[in-house]
Amino acid sequence: MLVAGKKVLVALGGNAIKPAIGKGSYEEQMMNIAKACDSIVRLIEIGCKVAITHGNGPQIGDLLIQQEESAWKIPPQPIDVCGAMTQGQIGYMLQNIIQNKLKSLNLNISVVTIITRVLVDKNDPAFKNPCKPIGPFYDYETAMRYEKEKGYYIRKVLPTGDKPYRRVVPSPDPIAIVEGEIIKRLMDEGVITIASGGGGIPVVEENGKLIGVEAVIDKDLAGERMAEAIGANVFIIITDIDKVKLNFGKQNEKDIDVMTIEEAEQYLQEGHFLPGSMEPKVKSCIRFIRAGGEKAIITSLDKAMLAIEGKAGTLIVP
Amino acid sequence: MLVAGKKVLVALGGNAIKPAIGKGSYEEQMMNIAKACDSIVRLIEIGCKVAITHGNGPQIGDLLIQQEESAWKIPPQPIDVCGAMTQGQIGYMLQNIIQNKLKSLNLNISVVTIITRVLVDKNDPAFKNPCKPIGPFYDYETAMRYEKEKGYYIRKVLPTGDKPYRRVVPSPDPIAIVEGEIIKRLMDEGVITIASGGGGIPVVEENGKLIGVEAVIDKDLAGERMAEAIGANVFIIITDIDKVKLNFGKQNEKDIDVMTIEEAEQYLQEGHFLPGSMEPKVKSCIRFIRAGGEKAIITSLDKAMLAIEGKAGTLIVP
Repeated sequence: MLVAGKKVLVALGGNAIKPAIGKGSYEEQMMNIAKACDSIVRLIEIGCKVAITHGNGPQIGDLLIQQEESAWKIPPQPIDVCGAMTQGQIGYMLQNIIQNKLKSLNLNISVVTIITRVLVDKNDPAFKNPCKPIGPFYDYETAMRYEKEKGYYIRKVLPTGDKPYRRVVPSPDPIAIVEGEIIKRLMDEGVITIASGGGGIPVVEENGKLIGVEAVIDKDLAGERMAEAIGANVFIIITDIDKVKLNFGKQNEKDIDVMTIEEAEQYLQEGHFLPGSMEPKVKSCIRFIRAGGEKAIITSLDKAMLAIEGKAGTLIVP
Repeated sequence: MLVAGKKVLVALGGNAIKPAIGKGSYEEQMMNIAKACDSIVRLIEIGCKVAITHGNGPQIGDLLIQQEESAWKIPPQPIDVCGAMTQGQIGYMLQNIIQNKLKSLNLNISVVTIITRVLVDKNDPAFKNPCKPIGPFYDYETAMRYEKEKGYYIRKVLPTGDKPYRRVVPSPDPIAIVEGEIIKRLMDEGVITIASGGGGIPVVEENGKLIGVEAVIDKDLAGERMAEAIGANVFIIITDIDKVKLNFGKQNEKDIDVMTIEEAEQYLQEGHFLPGSMEPKVKSCIRFIRAGGEKAIITSLDKAMLAIEGKAGTLIVP
């Protein structure tokens, strides 16, 4: 059970806010956020020091489609800039709702959104093997045209259908949160910080300078770096599944209530967790505990409240 | 002349970054920013404590067009959310360039972008008289359709042409920077803060809660509130004109080198300054000096470096 004084980083899935690309008006997103933030507000109410990160998949997907539809008259921005835009977008909505919820509990606490860059290695092997799908789906002709004209890496991501192709970009491993020091300071001063949205804006270092790159960092792996930066005791990943599963999707599927990082690593090796889905989440939790964290929790939005009380979710411990 | 230790707020025009809606690729914007930031970097180099705000007219214009072009498949976001997006977009580009320029001077200084909400009065008369044009230009039919379907306020903003109509939104007076306290603290700790971009995201207070509204705050008037919040000594507005003019555009047009706030107020009353253009800039400077500021400077990008040395621009003093 979580108690007052603990530093907690909550990582909220982008889908918890907007179900999919092309879905979810502003009003719907605000309703989803209101629901998604109940457990975050509860944590603050019981006296935890909370920082928040979030995904941006559906939101950046929307933006890339909007850019493409009007590329004939408005110059599109690169993916790192689009990432910065979605940090502003989602952070603003989150901070309004969280601050207002706190206010109705008579808690006058500042909630701030920090545009966050995340350092990656320019020699990360991911840059040679782009594999993270992003943006619109294309038919064969459009896909091939963009591959040629824009230098996109294209991958077939659906087995059938008219538009099975998508652009893929590198998903390098996050090294450090550029704004980590500032986020930590704000947290220590009692400010709720929303940061590293969408896995952060990827930057590489070249001759001491930070240069933005077209890539997407996994938001839970980046969240873990943020958890390290702020010295979090607890790392909570909120996703669309109540508990992590062994033999996911098979007949002998089984919930995991608690696992040590040694067990988690063994399960990883045995291939229990889907790459790009549960795998990076479990990896993030292992990393967090190895870096000195007390516990990590993976759970769903519906069970988050119970998970805070230690009554739901999957617990990862040293 | 500006000296070490002074707290300076620089307000950068949105056009200094992107010349107009539909113009300016990412690369061009980065080149413009690199140029626009020389004087800012110089201020930091000589030991001033600097905070930055900026306009977002062309950028939010682009975004509104992109949203409209693909509204049939992607739900458009309201103007306050679009404002938050452009704060992320422009802040990220600015911070990368400023931090890198400082780095090449061997100055390791953090530059951070804060998503900034600005409080306005829900009873501000501006809400009954929307007059700030925003987004795409429309022909008569489209304008009338949007007026009916979306409840837009429409105004004819060009005397002739196929598309002389535009949406207009309220431009309420800023009361306070919601994140002002945090921005001040960061500045005092030596961090360069980029905040209140595009005049800030307008929010009203209702039953103690902050609610975003579809409006646009003048970026210089909001910048002035930010200057107050951080306790700035000097407020510099960088625009597209070297000096403020008396009898602007007339035969007897004359540069103003220096004016007291009493003189400035008289000139305002005499109608020397264009509403929505030089008028709010001069008003912001008057407000700044009245609130205890030492001096305000209005100048162009080209002359900003000289203005720092007291050799160019229009100076407004008590």
